[in-house]
Amino acid sequence: MPAYATNMRLKFPILALTLEIITIILYAVFTVYSDGKSHDEGDKKHNETHPDTEPLKLYPMFQDVHVMIFIGFGFLMTFLKRYGFSSVGVNLLLAAFGLQWGLLMQGIWHLEDGKIKIGIEKMINADFSTATVLISFGAVLGKTSPVQLLIMTILEITIFCVNEHLAVEVLGASDVGASMTIHAFGAYFGLAVARVLYRPGLRNGHENDGSVYHSDMFAMIGTVFLWMFWPSFNSAIADPGLPQLTAVINTYLSLAACVLSAYAISSLVEHKGKLDMVHIQNATLAGGVAVGTCADMAIGPFGAMLIGFVAGIVSTLGFKYLSPILAANLGIQDTCGVHNLHGMPGILGGLAGIVAVALGRKEGDAAMQAAALASSLGFALVGGSITGLIMKLPFWGQPPDQNCFDDSIYWEVPAEEEENEESGAHADHSKNKAEV
Amino acid sequence: MPAYATNMRLKFPILALTLEIITIILYAVFTVYSDGKSHDEGDKKHNETHPDTEPLKLYPMFQDVHVMIFIGFGFLMTFLKRYGFSSVGVNLLLAAFGLQWGLLMQGIWHLEDGKIKIGIEKMINADFSTATVLISFGAVLGKTSPVQLLIMTILEITIFCVNEHLAVEVLGASDVGASMTIHAFGAYFGLAVARVLYRPGLRNGHENDGSVYHSDMFAMIGTVFLWMFWPSFNSAIADPGLPQLTAVINTYLSLAACVLSAYAISSLVEHKGKLDMVHIQNATLAGGVAVGTCADMAIGPFGAMLIGFVAGIVSTLGFKYLSPILAANLGIQDTCGVHNLHGMPGILGGLAGIVAVALGRKEGDAAMQAAALASSLGFALVGGSITGLIMKLPFWGQPPDQNCFDDSIYWEVPAEEEENEESGAHADHSKNKAEV
Amino acid sequence: MPAYATNMRLKFPILALTLEIITIILYAVFTVYSDGKSHDEGDKKHNETHPDTEPLKLYPMFQDVHVMIFIGFGFLMTFLKRYGFSSVGVNLLLAAFGLQWGLLMQGIWHLEDGKIKIGIEKMINADFSTATVLISFGAVLGKTSPVQLLIMTILEITIFCVNEHLAVEVLGASDVGASMTIHAFGAYFGLAVARVLYRPGLRNGHENDGSVYHSDMFAMIGTVFLWMFWPSFNSAIADPGLPQLTAVINTYLSLAACVLSAYAISSLVEHKGKLDMVHIQNATLAGGVAVGTCADMAIGPFGAMLIGFVAGIVSTLGFKYLSPILAANLGIQDTCGVHNLHGMPGILGGLAGIVAVALGRKEGDAAMQAAALASSLGFALVGGSITGLIMKLPFWGQPPDQNCFDDSIYWEVPAEEEENEESGAHADHSKNKAEV
Repeated sequence: MPAYATNMRLKFPILALTLEIITIILYAVFTVYSDGKSHDEGDKKHNETHPDTEPLKLYPMFQDVHVMIFIGFGFLMTFLKRYGFSSVGVNLLLAAFGLQWGLLMQGIWHLEDGKIKIGIEKMINADFSTATVLISFGAVLGKTSPVQLLIMTILEITIFCVNEHLAVEVLGASDVGASMTIHAFGAYFGLAVARVLYRPGLRNGHENDGSVYHSDMFAMIGTVFLWMFWPSFNSAIADPGLPQLTAVINTYLSLAACVLSAYAISSLVEHKGKLDMVHIQNATLAGGVAVGTCADMAIGPFGAMLIGFVAGIVSTLGFKYLSPILAANLGIQDTCGVHNLHGMPGILGGLAGIVAVALGRKEGDAAMQAAALASSLGFALVGGSITGLIMKLPFWGQPPDQNCFDDSIYWEVPAEEEENEESGAHADHSKNKAEV
Repeated sequence: MPAYATNMRLKFPILALTLEIITIILYAVFTVYSDGKSHDEGDKKHNETHPDTEPLKLYPMFQDVHVMIFIGFGFLMTFLKRYGFSSVGVNLLLAAFGLQWGLLMQGIWHLEDGKIKIGIEKMINADFSTATVLISFGAVLGKTSPVQLLIMTILEITIFCVNEHLAVEVLGASDVGASMTIHAFGAYFGLAVARVLYRPGLRNGHENDGSVYHSDMFAMIGTVFLWMFWPSFNSAIADPGLPQLTAVINTYLSLAACVLSAYAISSLVEHKGKLDMVHIQNATLAGGVAVGTCADMAIGPFGAMLIGFVAGIVSTLGFKYLSPILAANLGIQDTCGVHNLHGMPGILGGLAGIVAVALGRKEGDAAMQAAALASSLGFALVGGSITGLIMKLPFWGQPPDQNCFDDSIYWEVPAEEEENEESGAHADHSKNKAEV
Repeated sequence: MPAYATNMRLKFPILALTLEIITIILYAVFTVYSDGKSHDEGDKKHNETHPDTEPLKLYPMFQDVHVMIFIGFGFLMTFLKRYGFSSVGVNLLLAAFGLQWGLLMQGIWHLEDGKIKIGIEKMINADFSTATVLISFGAVLGKTSPVQLLIMTILEITIFCVNEHLAVEVLGASDVGASMTIHAFGAYFGLAVARVLYRPGLRNGHENDGSVYHSDMFAMIGTVFLWMFWPSFNSAIADPGLPQLTAVINTYLSLAACVLSAYAISSLVEHKGKLDMVHIQNATLAGGVAVGTCADMAIGPFGAMLIGFVAGIVSTLGFKYLSPILAANLGIQDTCGVHNLHGMPGILGGLAGIVAVALGRKEGDAAMQAAALASSLGFALVGGSITGLIMKLPFWGQPPDQNCFDDSIYWEVPAEEEENEESGAHADHSKNKAEV
């Protein structure tokens, strides 16, 4: 079956090594360490309060974001019963490459003497740029090869950096927690890719497209770390001092309110009033997404809670009612339901930002906010469609339908314990680290 | 069986949504962001060293506490073989509501111009207030419905805030790490509830009231995060500078010494000298509880270690010998053994505080320390008993005995992998996120 | 079989309690809290920028290191199918004792008025000293008793402190991220111990010396936390300001580049191009080890990436080709492959440090760098061999070959869920926490 040449022995190593070598060369040419003096982050206001002696002031927030990217996104996707290695492992691969690429792509807009000066804020933004890819990864989880996903990483981060520059620098829109430029962008980009890669053979579901008890527990590690550190995500690049504090408080309260509405609606929409892990793992986070754009605005604690409350409802209802319709009628097979966690809450966040700016909760131009939202959606849908077409080329090692949602096509997977015991023998494919 | 109407489809959503809406209204009326200027935390001393420009100085400590509340407590309780969704999921629910409620209840004692000014220290204290509920949750784990637990959350946090105000503000007792006001209070409150909810049908144990290998591993995630970040818990609201450093050092050393004694006694009391995961998961943390009251006092590094060493012994012996007696003779079925982790070590901490103040290790009045301990125990036992009676009303959806310790009564639980494979079919209740 | 008296009921508690009591006495004699004024960390430069009012400046970095030690190392070793309790549990035991012992052994070189003044930097260094033991633990994982391992802890940390003092203070070598003094030292110490404890009976592997699906998932928790927080490990004790920032950036980029090369080579060396979890769990971290010595040097972002890139290749190839040779021909059974993660990358880091100093990337003497590397290897091999001989004495409770890699020899292990269900009865050894 030549269309499914899933053996990656040559194509994956060649691609990965080539990309990394090119990246190292680009770093040799374009990057230096921050000297702590110049316009380190392209923003004079910051430098007045981040003096030379405190280049690590934002480091704890960076580490919170880092945990969200690598533990949060990685484990959130481990809910699938046989796809945990790929979820956390490919998440690590994509994010590790993505942050290198993102730092370059974001930095080319702010060269100083022809160089990108690397500091903590640039590292935070580099981590941010990978979040778009990890969101899109959720939409196509289980149905793509590592080679396809590396290609998506390069293209999506490049397009993200163009849109972000347009939205924030050119249009001057406010989007401190990136509801529009990361969440809505990443979700609709991924949905566009998923649409292009539509698999009719999965119309009726797939045996492995579901969880088992312990895989749902692993996913909760991701959920809870994302939930806890989201205030850092939304405030990391806010203006220091009270605006940053406001972003922390708004996100903390929005997420807390969101939990209550997500649990309530999850119970309400099930026949027997039971809670559904899919909703708990995802919709409880929608408050973090939706308050992103407004996080540093004076919307009041109750305003943040209202946004989170609505986001929890919208997200849970989306999982229950909208995702099946998208899959059945539009051919959008969204494995993790990123439309419900990042898509709709991201748009909600963008709209809230327009209203908040119009109401004067932060200086700005409501029309530019709207333009930034439109730009993010437009770049996502067009960019995702083109990227999907490239990913659809038949030589990137995508899995055949029957091997979707299954680690064993790209990973050495240990034999099950039961088999070992029954056979009484030393299974060939058990991993004896030192001996074999 | 009308007494066990466990279908939560109406009662849980109505309660959760109503509580959240009321809370949002109260926040609209009573809360504003901290302006960084006024008596933000009701303590002039703090404001001198937390100037306007550093409103986020305590944010890393807040995040450590946040991890303890949501990952630490949540995963510590996942040791039960079929109750992981509830442990980490209901923990999230209770803590998310509890922090909103706690911030209000604590704030009403410190209104400024009729408002609660929200800042990081208030968020830390809000997180703290939820710890009492999560401790009590451990005592009744597996035997209560989410509706019952939400009711417990409101009542316990309200009573906690009254007692804390009395102990710390009125009596002027020192309890920086809250051995008395959180740990002893939460434990005895929960034990009182458990006593009122006594289930004779569980006298001889329950098939699901135990762990499996991987559930014990998940629980260790909770244990280790609690263990690591406990120095932040005990020092977060200490006076800045050297007192805060002292609290960190004392807790770090107390916990380290506690590990050695807990392991030693665990091995000593087992026939074959084997270690017991129940002890390791819990008693290793007793040093953090017991050093709480004294954490910021000049008890010396070795004093902290002695407290931890004794706490590890007391806690392990409690699990081995005392819990069975409480269950058999007093009708106190303490699922997680909170009496051993929070109850006795909390009292030990209170007593150590009395001695330390009497010895002049910190300015204060030993009698007031004793009064604070007595107050905490009194409020806990009386408050817990009344709360237990309310929770015992027969319409809150509590599970029948045979469904205790089982997620599937309140959660959609995925089919086991084995079943899926054997049937070869697509199990009805498998979760196909996008398709179904 | 008297040589395998694995019942630890007396020997383990007596050893653990004795060690802890002696330690508490030594702390009573030798330690006080830092007063924030004197040469707290034996380094005047630091004190100028760590004034009295900020004794907790390094606390967030300390907590990152703390997470690496207790979650990172602990869970990384849980990959074995039946050895998770020991991996994370004995890791906690050894690290909790080791940090107490390490703080004393490191402090005796810097007494002030006959006292060790405990502050955050001393706590970071104490945590560091335990890393050597946890690395060596990986080499002998599954084949040693807790008693043997406590003995190793005392001896290895003592020897480590002598070598570190020699390398850093006497020779004046630069080793900020401790490629030489921790990673290479810990690895070769462990390998020497493993050689002395060689078990011919395990030549053909062991049924339990392998992973199952979920144990590999638990191990990824360790991997990812180590990966994320390694920048803190390599920068925690760097000079404040720009050197510390440099150490963060170099480590961040080295690790990112290392991921790409480790994944690529893992796929390349497998027949079908599949990724191997052993490589992903370990070799992705080699970049953190290898950049350690140079982390605070001006090697340039691309220099750090080159080091990480090479480390990922070397480490993966080591797992694939070298470990089997060491086991088969040299009798070195290295359970976790620490030679590939810490040994070779540690030497690589030492060599990179020699070159970087020779090229003037940091002030220093390349010959002294080389002497520090040689010293670390020499102390490790000699110290490890002697320690191994002591550990080989036949009364420390080491497990017989057939019980290696099995928790149940030292731990109460819960019955499997399946058995409980089939028997329909209440299994004797199930853990009913409150009732039994």
